[in-house]
Amino acid sequence: METLRVELGSRSYPILIGQGLLRERSLFEQHLRARDLLVVSNTVVAPLYLDVLEASLQPRRVVAAILPDGESHKTLATVGRVLDVLVANRFGRDCAVVALGGGVVGDMAGFAAATFQRGVAFAQVPTTLLAQVDSSVGGKTGVNHPGGKNLIGAFHQPVVVVADTRTLATLPPRELRAGLAEVIKYGLICDADFFAWLEARMDALLAADPAALAHVIRRSCEIKAEIVGRDEREHGDRALLNLGHTFGHAVESATGYTEWLHGEAIGAGLVMAACMSRESGYLTSEELERVTRLVARAGLPTHVSNVKPDIALQHMRIDKKVQAGKIRLVLPRGIGSAFVTADYAEPALSRTLEAHLG
Amino acid sequence: METLRVELGSRSYPILIGQGLLRERSLFEQHLRARDLLVVSNTVVAPLYLDVLEASLQPRRVVAAILPDGESHKTLATVGRVLDVLVANRFGRDCAVVALGGGVVGDMAGFAAATFQRGVAFAQVPTTLLAQVDSSVGGKTGVNHPGGKNLIGAFHQPVVVVADTRTLATLPPRELRAGLAEVIKYGLICDADFFAWLEARMDALLAADPAALAHVIRRSCEIKAEIVGRDEREHGDRALLNLGHTFGHAVESATGYTEWLHGEAIGAGLVMAACMSRESGYLTSEELERVTRLVARAGLPTHVSNVKPDIALQHMRIDKKVQAGKIRLVLPRGIGSAFVTADYAEPALSRTLEAHLG
Repeated sequence: METLRVELGSRSYPILIGQGLLRERSLFEQHLRARDLLVVSNTVVAPLYLDVLEASLQPRRVVAAILPDGESHKTLATVGRVLDVLVANRFGRDCAVVALGGGVVGDMAGFAAATFQRGVAFAQVPTTLLAQVDSSVGGKTGVNHPGGKNLIGAFHQPVVVVADTRTLATLPPRELRAGLAEVIKYGLICDADFFAWLEARMDALLAADPAALAHVIRRSCEIKAEIVGRDEREHGDRALLNLGHTFGHAVESATGYTEWLHGEAIGAGLVMAACMSRESGYLTSEELERVTRLVARAGLPTHVSNVKPDIALQHMRIDKKVQAGKIRLVLPRGIGSAFVTADYAEPALSRTLEAHLG
Repeated sequence: METLRVELGSRSYPILIGQGLLRERSLFEQHLRARDLLVVSNTVVAPLYLDVLEASLQPRRVVAAILPDGESHKTLATVGRVLDVLVANRFGRDCAVVALGGGVVGDMAGFAAATFQRGVAFAQVPTTLLAQVDSSVGGKTGVNHPGGKNLIGAFHQPVVVVADTRTLATLPPRELRAGLAEVIKYGLICDADFFAWLEARMDALLAADPAALAHVIRRSCEIKAEIVGRDEREHGDRALLNLGHTFGHAVESATGYTEWLHGEAIGAGLVMAACMSRESGYLTSEELERVTRLVARAGLPTHVSNVKPDIALQHMRIDKKVQAGKIRLVLPRGIGSAFVTADYAEPALSRTLEAHLG
């Protein structure tokens, strides 16, 4: 088992990464003190891992809330159902909520924990690559609004993240590929060596090679923990983690969260961000080509045909990073560096959207 | 104008108290920087003060969300409507939400501000005595759940509280009396002199004497600001501010939030807490009599006939202060002091409920 740490003063917490951690009762005893636990999962993950997790949480009182699967259910109404379960079981302020699943489950369980009794303890047990490398770390919780992705939410840090890499063995290939989008993002924003490593080892990752996946999870969590520790509330560098997300969220919103997985939309979003950088002189054509090729090799879309450019632009205008009406974009500057800017030519944005959408 | 301060490090903020502050544009310019503002109010307060406030917020972009009046509307669904307005108007992370009204409006506007885009700026413009002496200060926001009062919410501090005491001139007498319940609470938990002052000046307060009200608002805010500054998240002394609230919330929940104003329920709750203290030896019969008499003189109920004791007990069991299944109570110890305890005799609780309910 490897242990990383997110350093946030009194809210610091460990990220535990290893094979078979779901079965290690002592870990949960050590890191999760509450006697009343609500496990939030979904209809796909619960049949696979809920029994195992519940056994590791015994002899405490464990109640489960099983949600429908998919980003289209990540709504205030679904979180309301989780809160109903907490109230119906008379859980107190000293309970804890445990998220067992991917990013959607983690976001909603975390938001329920953030708002139940104005905040109760929360643990992340991510079972997808995307959740293990990204969404389970950093305390962003929330739900979508019909008007835009993640527009409603809270910062609420977990007390522990338990990433059992063995759960990736049951992950559908499409979900594995979706997780690789966030991994490529980390290389692109701050680690050129890691980006090159991904180029060299993409075949092993697609074959779900355990050693390759373990390396990817560790390095991704290291990068994320370091950035979150520096800038928890996204006043500065944390915004770099949104590379590709303004584009990607627009793709998700415009298709009602039903057509594309989050990671797939982010794959296309990375390519669009790189295209904007090339248009603006921050990437060479060769670097753009490396980004596009790596996204394509990960089995992710580099072009999204079912979203019209003007519709995407409308959705981009309600992104959380809009300031004074101007869409701010995270753009790569070379491979391994990125920055936030609102200083770009509108025609470049139009060309980028038209080249990759519709 | 008087200025108090809630000291919370980088989240410190001023409480401005005075006659006619709603009209002072310079105050809002100084303390509220956002260019896009959502004013949340209700159908009773908006016709009286929305125009005045909007004029003071010009020339910025001001949108209003007018909610139905009353605690029974303090739900997740109503907050969802406020969030819809924010999204529909494409407000960004740099907007601010302004609560214009009483405690219900403030709680919901604050919760919307806490969760929109994971937190935007928030200002309180309280127009009731209860909101000016209590709910607008301290950052507790949230909504009720059918299973219990304020079970869903967040801590989200305002950037400024603007208490225009002139708004109390239009306050219905019933609302004025409800506010006095929280005022009596402050005297009872930590200021015997203030309690005695209230005994001496109750007639002036009921006649809405401006000088008497100004004193009450200032002293109440001083006490609350001091306690919140010491214990923002209610790990310790802040719980004392809940004196009477475990009983009072049960009365409100049991009657569907439609029969009693919050302050009326708290009035009865103060008497029940004092009764428990007398039963447990923490108050003399004379002190209990002083509490009961002051609550009655404020025109507040000391007995609630439309709630059955066993139903109230069920509601008390889902209070936020329950720990390990035991209801913790805030009890006065003499006049001017209080403490939190789960160490009391169950029959004393039953006798207290039976004496004051049903």
